[in-house]
Amino acid sequence: MKTRLIKALGITCPVIQAPMAFAAGGALASAVSRAGGLGMIGGAYGDAAWIGQQFDIAAGARVGCGLITWKLAERPHLLGRVLARNPAALFLSFGNPAPFAPAIKDAGVPLICQVQTLRDARQALDCGADIIVAQGAEAGGHGEARGTFALVPEIADEIARQNTSALLCAAGGITDGRGLAAALMLGADGVVIGTRFWASHEALVHPRVLKRAMAATGDDTIRTRVVDVVRGYDWPGRYNGRVLRNPFIQKWHGSEDALKLEAGVEAAKWAAAQETGDIDVATAFAGEGVGLISSAAPAGDILAKLMADAQRCLAGAAA
Amino acid sequence: MKTRLIKALGITCPVIQAPMAFAAGGALASAVSRAGGLGMIGGAYGDAAWIGQQFDIAAGARVGCGLITWKLAERPHLLGRVLARNPAALFLSFGNPAPFAPAIKDAGVPLICQVQTLRDARQALDCGADIIVAQGAEAGGHGEARGTFALVPEIADEIARQNTSALLCAAGGITDGRGLAAALMLGADGVVIGTRFWASHEALVHPRVLKRAMAATGDDTIRTRVVDVVRGYDWPGRYNGRVLRNPFIQKWHGSEDALKLEAGVEAAKWAAAQETGDIDVATAFAGEGVGLISSAAPAGDILAKLMADAQRCLAGAAA
Repeated sequence: MKTRLIKALGITCPVIQAPMAFAAGGALASAVSRAGGLGMIGGAYGDAAWIGQQFDIAAGARVGCGLITWKLAERPHLLGRVLARNPAALFLSFGNPAPFAPAIKDAGVPLICQVQTLRDARQALDCGADIIVAQGAEAGGHGEARGTFALVPEIADEIARQNTSALLCAAGGITDGRGLAAALMLGADGVVIGTRFWASHEALVHPRVLKRAMAATGDDTIRTRVVDVVRGYDWPGRYNGRVLRNPFIQKWHGSEDALKLEAGVEAAKWAAAQETGDIDVATAFAGEGVGLISSAAPAGDILAKLMADAQRCLAGAAA
Repeated sequence: MKTRLIKALGITCPVIQAPMAFAAGGALASAVSRAGGLGMIGGAYGDAAWIGQQFDIAAGARVGCGLITWKLAERPHLLGRVLARNPAALFLSFGNPAPFAPAIKDAGVPLICQVQTLRDARQALDCGADIIVAQGAEAGGHGEARGTFALVPEIADEIARQNTSALLCAAGGITDGRGLAAALMLGADGVVIGTRFWASHEALVHPRVLKRAMAATGDDTIRTRVVDVVRGYDWPGRYNGRVLRNPFIQKWHGSEDALKLEAGVEAAKWAAAQETGDIDVATAFAGEGVGLISSAAPAGDILAKLMADAQRCLAGAAA
């Protein structure tokens, strides 16, 4: 397969693994990169020591790193430490990338900006983003309301209008070869895949939580603020997170103010459940594509099957 | 182009025009059918006289009719009157199709069931639906929360598992040839298109409302209950409607209880605005794909361009 993304990143599959907070460590990132995609360490809320460890684990593979932009703004010194690890790309999501773009560009590191609206895409293009990721609401974890299907071509048209060299990836609901083929048809140069790699042997996910997710359908996920409220994470109001419904989410979704009042007790309960894999309380950050996944697999196998399926879809398209 | 849908419906383009309430009359439906797709009269809330007039207007073209299922349940006698017009297909959305499926099947009329979840799709398959429409949240007008991108392949997999002959169409965010090509990659046999035909010369839309929509981006739409509250329409709680934001929507979205208290005055104001095309109050039932549309056109031209673009996308896919 040949796309502009493959050429620009020096990869063989037009697939970037989403830098999923807590789940995407060095093992997953390096497995994806070794299989021909671009693996990403989920730098998330910016635990510098953890990020360093994950780069060590990935040593020998060319991997990138993702950071939550509004959190990076609280600890901007982190950017230099991440750039010092010579990441294959820097992936910024959820906030204004403008303050950080110059340092990333100066370091010669490709800047990937994940956006959820056309407005955000314009801001990212103004910052000189090399790759725009159009993330639809289907995605697991944090995001916004617009769906993948119309967002991708609308941003493709905007890039064409501006006549820039920026590339475009689709994210949200892309789980298999059909999704990659469809994203290319919509005008994307490649895809960002989270949930399918979240359900891999290399991801840092509790096996009981993973097992529960493998039995779920796409109907079983929901966008909610419950998980951020219980963790005391101060996310900007426009974002919420897609997770698998479970009794904990069902109890508190729509009652977030009440949850705040009991945050101490509930936070301890939630944190313990994340450790023990108590599926009634622990959170599975899964997207709607979870309904297309029935079992975990090694990340390299996932990517190889996805590419073969996509090529079969695309070859069949002409006929 | 050859797909199973084309063969099953005796059409030349795998495109069904969404039976949009109030906007899709006989002029639009017949124009789409004459151009090679399947045009549909938007039977909506079941005004039998209006539906009859629209069939008269479409006389000579083979068109179908769509009905809102929960509303049909309140006036089930309507079904016989519609079937008496020998529709090319009966399109049921929003509710349990089971009570109506036998009469439709007995009449030899293809039964199209629009669904918003995998659970709904299973119910529709149990009813013997000939065509399942997987409608994502991007769609204009009524619908639910799941996005098109993962819903379509998940329902495709369900149809394959059940080994039925049911066909699948994608709806929600499909506006141009890229969208049709992508939907086919996701496993659909065709597409249902609303907003792009809403912005046609034949649709029953006030020109000022249409002009405003043509200047909008996909960021400018929202799913809300405001319009149903002001009209006093008793929609089941799981559904809401995607519309273009305007001052009226911005004022009342999130304040629906307050709107109920002022429903008399506001209803009159809203109804008048629909007539006069006051864009600050009148509702444009547009999907997220509105950002991909910059001008209205004759429905036949829309379909011809969409098909040519899709074929170019698909032909390019193999390369």
